[in-house]
Amino acid sequence: MTSTGLGYEISPWELRWRGLDVNELQRTESTFALSNGHIGMRGTLEEAEPRGLPGTYLNGFYEEHPLPYAEAGYGYPEAGQTVVNVTDGKIIRLLVEDEPLDVRYGHAAEHSRVLDFRRGTLRRDTVWTSPTGRQVRVRTERLVSFTQRAVAAIAYEVEPLDDGIQLVAQSDLLANEPIESDTSDPRVSAALRSPLVGEFSTAEDYRAALVHRTKRSGLRMAAAMDHEVFANDGLRTELQLEEDLARLTIAVDVPKGDRLRIIKYLGYGWSAQRSIPALRSQVDAALAGALQTGWEGLLAEQRRFLDHFWETADVEVDGDPELQQAVRFALFHVLQAAARGESRAIPGKGLTGPGYDGHAFWDTETFVLQALTYTQPDAARDALRWRHSTLDKAKDRAAQLGLRGAAFPWRSINGAECSAYWPAGTAAFHVNADIADAVTRYLAATGDAEFDRVHGTELLLETARLWTSLGHHDPHGGFRIDGITGPDEYSAVTDNNVYTNLMAQRNLLTAAEACERNPDIAEASGVDDIEIAGWREAARKMLIPYDELLEVHPQSERFTEHARWDFAGTPARNYPLLLHYPYFDLYRKQVVKQADLVLAMHLRGDAFTLEQKQRNFAYYEALTVRDSSLSAGTQAVLAAECGHLELAYDYLAEAALTDLHDVHNNVRNGLHMASLAGAWLAIVAGFGGMRDHGGELTFQPRLPAALDRLAFRMCFHGTQFVVEIHRDKAEYRLVHGDPVTIKHYGTPLTLSETTATLPVPTLVPAERPTQPAGRAPARRTRTGPRR
Amino acid sequence: MTSTGLGYEISPWELRWRGLDVNELQRTESTFALSNGHIGMRGTLEEAEPRGLPGTYLNGFYEEHPLPYAEAGYGYPEAGQTVVNVTDGKIIRLLVEDEPLDVRYGHAAEHSRVLDFRRGTLRRDTVWTSPTGRQVRVRTERLVSFTQRAVAAIAYEVEPLDDGIQLVAQSDLLANEPIESDTSDPRVSAALRSPLVGEFSTAEDYRAALVHRTKRSGLRMAAAMDHEVFANDGLRTELQLEEDLARLTIAVDVPKGDRLRIIKYLGYGWSAQRSIPALRSQVDAALAGALQTGWEGLLAEQRRFLDHFWETADVEVDGDPELQQAVRFALFHVLQAAARGESRAIPGKGLTGPGYDGHAFWDTETFVLQALTYTQPDAARDALRWRHSTLDKAKDRAAQLGLRGAAFPWRSINGAECSAYWPAGTAAFHVNADIADAVTRYLAATGDAEFDRVHGTELLLETARLWTSLGHHDPHGGFRIDGITGPDEYSAVTDNNVYTNLMAQRNLLTAAEACERNPDIAEASGVDDIEIAGWREAARKMLIPYDELLEVHPQSERFTEHARWDFAGTPARNYPLLLHYPYFDLYRKQVVKQADLVLAMHLRGDAFTLEQKQRNFAYYEALTVRDSSLSAGTQAVLAAECGHLELAYDYLAEAALTDLHDVHNNVRNGLHMASLAGAWLAIVAGFGGMRDHGGELTFQPRLPAALDRLAFRMCFHGTQFVVEIHRDKAEYRLVHGDPVTIKHYGTPLTLSETTATLPVPTLVPAERPTQPAGRAPARRTRTGPRR
Repeated sequence: MTSTGLGYEISPWELRWRGLDVNELQRTESTFALSNGHIGMRGTLEEAEPRGLPGTYLNGFYEEHPLPYAEAGYGYPEAGQTVVNVTDGKIIRLLVEDEPLDVRYGHAAEHSRVLDFRRGTLRRDTVWTSPTGRQVRVRTERLVSFTQRAVAAIAYEVEPLDDGIQLVAQSDLLANEPIESDTSDPRVSAALRSPLVGEFSTAEDYRAALVHRTKRSGLRMAAAMDHEVFANDGLRTELQLEEDLARLTIAVDVPKGDRLRIIKYLGYGWSAQRSIPALRSQVDAALAGALQTGWEGLLAEQRRFLDHFWETADVEVDGDPELQQAVRFALFHVLQAAARGESRAIPGKGLTGPGYDGHAFWDTETFVLQALTYTQPDAARDALRWRHSTLDKAKDRAAQLGLRGAAFPWRSINGAECSAYWPAGTAAFHVNADIADAVTRYLAATGDAEFDRVHGTELLLETARLWTSLGHHDPHGGFRIDGITGPDEYSAVTDNNVYTNLMAQRNLLTAAEACERNPDIAEASGVDDIEIAGWREAARKMLIPYDELLEVHPQSERFTEHARWDFAGTPARNYPLLLHYPYFDLYRKQVVKQADLVLAMHLRGDAFTLEQKQRNFAYYEALTVRDSSLSAGTQAVLAAECGHLELAYDYLAEAALTDLHDVHNNVRNGLHMASLAGAWLAIVAGFGGMRDHGGELTFQPRLPAALDRLAFRMCFHGTQFVVEIHRDKAEYRLVHGDPVTIKHYGTPLTLSETTATLPVPTLVPAERPTQPAGRAPARRTRTGPRR
Repeated sequence: MTSTGLGYEISPWELRWRGLDVNELQRTESTFALSNGHIGMRGTLEEAEPRGLPGTYLNGFYEEHPLPYAEAGYGYPEAGQTVVNVTDGKIIRLLVEDEPLDVRYGHAAEHSRVLDFRRGTLRRDTVWTSPTGRQVRVRTERLVSFTQRAVAAIAYEVEPLDDGIQLVAQSDLLANEPIESDTSDPRVSAALRSPLVGEFSTAEDYRAALVHRTKRSGLRMAAAMDHEVFANDGLRTELQLEEDLARLTIAVDVPKGDRLRIIKYLGYGWSAQRSIPALRSQVDAALAGALQTGWEGLLAEQRRFLDHFWETADVEVDGDPELQQAVRFALFHVLQAAARGESRAIPGKGLTGPGYDGHAFWDTETFVLQALTYTQPDAARDALRWRHSTLDKAKDRAAQLGLRGAAFPWRSINGAECSAYWPAGTAAFHVNADIADAVTRYLAATGDAEFDRVHGTELLLETARLWTSLGHHDPHGGFRIDGITGPDEYSAVTDNNVYTNLMAQRNLLTAAEACERNPDIAEASGVDDIEIAGWREAARKMLIPYDELLEVHPQSERFTEHARWDFAGTPARNYPLLLHYPYFDLYRKQVVKQADLVLAMHLRGDAFTLEQKQRNFAYYEALTVRDSSLSAGTQAVLAAECGHLELAYDYLAEAALTDLHDVHNNVRNGLHMASLAGAWLAIVAGFGGMRDHGGELTFQPRLPAALDRLAFRMCFHGTQFVVEIHRDKAEYRLVHGDPVTIKHYGTPLTLSETTATLPVPTLVPAERPTQPAGRAPARRTRTGPRR
């Protein structure tokens, strides 16, 4: 085994950290987090300490706090939302002959943690000698169930290694666990200090439940635990109950060669509406189901679920074991973030940490849902259902802003806008086109007519309405969308952002098609032929600025006339720039935080010639500093398309390793879901050359020199197939389902269970574009990162 | 006497309000405020209640408070500053036979207040019958001395009108008077609740002093009072002293026909550095001087000061008595705001109320200093000295923003930036060109070589440096200044704002001239020939966008391609727009809060042809909603130049009556100094056609049909002269000083004490431009406002 930069061991199907490094706990709690999209648990040690930042999250469960403004403005959101650390059920403390198990004391001869991508569990194995010299082995395994969404479970086993030993285990449900908050706003930290108010608690035998509600947001949650205890006779248990604590204490003498084994089942639920008895019943029922299935049953279900996932979604990277691991890690976490979200948002950090306050952004639709649409389409559908469920809030917001249709929030948990800085929040209207784009992609990839009728068409038409009220036909020519902010957060409040205008154009056209496909739904929403004609006219006249002098597309109108950022005069310590330079200076200069025009060339690649792409790509490479984790994956995609395979490979590695290498030095607050999804995009859309413009699936596979082979699986209209990329050929094979037709370098190909082998054209190497001083991605070779 | 809309009586040299209207107290406390630019006192009744908002202010004396941000950013100011209500010395309460004088009880048979523009006092005359039937006349007169800047004084006289009567007067110094705060930020209101901490107090005989400091800003202030009491024998007095209160109680039996007369002298001082004994000595010395001068002496000095002012500054408006009064009211208050500021700022509201937190803005240089430069040039000089005294802070701010030279604050009391909303604060860099412009104007109008060497050149060169670091030469052609905000606050973060670019151009050129004029100062600041050449090159290449299709100047690049605001769909109740529409929507549309391009055509009129001015003026009239008080005066100036004399007259009236008619419904928080100065501009630059481009004084006088005659006085290089405008001729006469040369409609004329009469060319009436629906100024006729 070799080890990566941060102490992880490289292995194709698991992430292992061997040895103890207390300073790394907070980061690894994020990477070792378990989630099913409904419940999330950071990878904290069972004994709760030492710890970085404990965290148990329920998707959609948040506390509200006032948003302060020194200078207020019309339409500024008044309330913020922040994900809260709910009742912690992970905790099982252990006393070894009166000495609490704490790896900071005594001696841990062995200690390892393993996140298993196929079992879907986090295992831990510790051999510990207490300060008084008693030695035990503690083995735990925990899961958050993909199949029973309200359930988590922990198998906890202690084995005396020398003599028989007295053990006391304390298994807790703990509410209002004290945690540190990053915020400097006293009102926010006040809201998050002890956010839960106890409403009900009960305990009997090995089972207990606590019901709490938040103070301001008025949400109610319940957590329950039950236990199976396997030990020799002489077991003594006690069940303790307080408002914020339920504790099962198990005291037992364990002879040498014997073990204490505890299975802890956890049930979680929350609601904005249901009563205390209803919520309590819900978690009791979850526990009953879990107990009936049993630990081994839960493990088996978990494995089946993941086997099915990998059959549809696996990516094989031959020739770079670290990247192989990182890509599976990425897919595993994307799955965890989304699998059982079921009409809740997919937050930017999934349920792995409190970063971004637990908010969901456009990241979901533009990055995460691309990967999910082709690997776990039901999860993509559910995330879009969440958007649809917030349509009323989005319509209200549009009305408040003086617009028609729907204006979805820039950042939110419950669908209401929480962005307190409008130039990079409210003004970033592209989120609406991004949602429409995800709807269009999902429909094209699945043909899901029910979703089309119940959710999709309405999402498309209400976002289309937004664009016609946001833009206008100008006598100077063209349909303009002024004063908005595109994806690049180092520009704001610009006119005619190419990305936004192109995505709005597609939004308008797909909305028109959807309304014609579902005339009754259109009519119910008051859409008539005149409105549809207006959408088409706006799309037809959409202004796409172009700089004739430089022969590139300005990211937004006039962008290429702005001063270039002084990259040579910017020391490395001044990145990320936003922490060292004022917005006003970033906004008015040519400096790009993250792919914007380059993202347009991916998602609206049909609107550019290859030559334009190559010139544009080189131009923006020289300006893009990647102070955002939303960029490397997209840059990989365009680098590959423009023929820069090594550069694409470097960007792929950066995207895939963002969290494992902690590139942005903030993984402690949670994983970067969009970057993890970006790794998938770099492979499938980058080296696979996969595009889906107009619902047609096309490929232009190419293998970077550093790899021996790349293979990826995906599904389209329910059909699973695999694409293998070799040096000079590509192979396509249908795994399951009806034949589907794709294109390989423009040649139509109907996939079947017989492998189709097609040649990969030789690539004429082009000059590698340059990046701003010090901002090139790390060059990657077969043997790992070279820095 | 006729009465204006709000109950003021019309009179050429005073503002009188007769009768009692408790609901109007808060507004009239602003209009009746007294100030000398150092001390400000709102026109509260002596007995303190009923009251609107009491206020005593010391220029530059503020409390600090944290500025909250829900989403922080680099370079955001952390501390705000707010003017505080200091120790109140205006209070003299009266008990009439045990019944407190309170006009809300009993009966006030007569009650009037008069602000006298020549005496420089606020008089009050009340005949009051107590609930128990005792009748007294109370006459007071108060002044804030123009000649002794630390001194205010009150003459207080009570006369029994029926029988002899027992009177008890209580004369206070009261610190931490409870007041209401408009703010919704709990931390700001906390900072302003009891902002003063008592440090020292002393009392002896009729004299007392209180010394306090602020909690956070660490400023120290002292207030002292002394009294002369005139009454018959049997006087009993008592001097009471607490930390926040000093009170002289005077009890006396006053026989019918006799009077109780009290002269109260007040001394104020503050400092960031001086000790308690030093400050106490300072106010004691101020009192000693005042007592030595005596009440009659103070009155006489006040009159002499004002006689001299009116001799230099008076404006006569024949044919519109209300306007005559309003214009003198305006000049009087502009004088009060500035006369003795002496190296302190002139706040947007002067010292008349707590509006805008007591901050100074670009209003000072661009509007107030225009009027002062030609009427009270020493006050203009002192205000610019204040800017110079904050140069280090402005250089630090520029460095923080990554710029060279000086970046003066958008809003401030002590010179540090207090704007918490950068798109309309930090980004509004034009304030720096405005300061440079005021320097250039002052120098041209006075030839003050000492100011040039000690303050002016440095202000010019450091602001010039800002522009070359803020703008850049672009290969597309032109020197561009991108991403900044011009005067119009309904646009922000735009490229190449015409006003800003033209003003920066002048800034660069005048800085080059100043450095060549004072090479030693230039050298001391590190300016070399290359830098100067760079300024000239930037000025020469300065990009001034022009819309060839519409044949107008866009306010900023691309402005004329933006959507027009839907004026027809905007109900009257939705003004001011900023309270009913989001910034993002205002910014991206063609809607103008206040003169921007039109202001450029005034201050940089040399950069436009008359034809351009006429087309531009008509274009922007149709877009300008005047949600700002900084607009009407400038619109009057350009309306007059473009030949729309009636429209100019309407705008003049709006500017002059802004506070007397409470046009913006916020006069309770203080007067609008820039609008009051705008009234002067409307007359002198509007109907007088006065311009001073390149230091040359030119006139193009024209009389609106509604007036019989207009005359104004001004001074230039120490020479006072008068300009009289009649229907078809203009008269120029030197009042005092050396001959100066001006131009009348392009014809040079050297002024002498013999009246020169020149013809006014006949104006071909042009079509009156239209304004947005409902936003035309009120049409004014000779007899007063027509609404």
